[in-house]
Amino acid sequence: MRLGFKVWLDNGGKAFGEGPYQLLMRIEKAGSLRKAAIELEMSYRKAWLLIRRCEERLGIELIERRAGGIAGGGSFLTQPGKELLERYGQFRKEAGKALEGVYKKHFP
Amino acid sequence: MRLGFKVWLDNGGKAFGEGPYQLLMRIEKAGSLRKAAIELEMSYRKAWLLIRRCEERLGIELIERRAGGIAGGGSFLTQPGKELLERYGQFRKEAGKALEGVYKKHFP
Repeated sequence: MRLGFKVWLDNGGKAFGEGPYQLLMRIEKAGSLRKAAIELEMSYRKAWLLIRRCEERLGIELIERRAGGIAGGGSFLTQPGKELLERYGQFRKEAGKALEGVYKKHFP
Repeated sequence: MRLGFKVWLDNGGKAFGEGPYQLLMRIEKAGSLRKAAIELEMSYRKAWLLIRRCEERLGIELIERRAGGIAGGGSFLTQPGKELLERYGQFRKEAGKALEGVYKKHFP
């Protein structure tokens, strides 16, 4: 037996959780929403809609498009997007640790 | 903005979480799986299958049927079922408190 959990930010519905977190992580690394979506076996459209919905519910822009050219353009995280990624990452990690402690107390 | 979370016990899949917890709470009060299911706007069959799946994954019996008669029979919690309900209830409560603390730290 083990603990299962999910944490997310809510603002009139799910505003940011595990899915968008994984997506933003990959966009930051790959410099591309398209590549990030492929890595998560998600359609480009679904990934794009997910980000858009988060942006609406959070009230901040998370990613920006870079114009084409030799490298073919791509997407990158905005400053508020980077800050959210960092902050949520820390929150998620500490949430897991806190929950494991509570879980072990009640289900030793 | 607020924190959203779910916690559950996992044993090769979800073994016990919010849904079964609410159902057991109501079975204990109402003395009937049928009444508990109605209160949760769930079909009797769905409620029964949910309990059965939990019992399989947890490896314990959660409820027993009481034979009919004047009162028309019903369902009641087994001793292990009562203990799980109590323990999970405490776990759930403390998990929420711990998570709120971590959330406020990162999203003040």
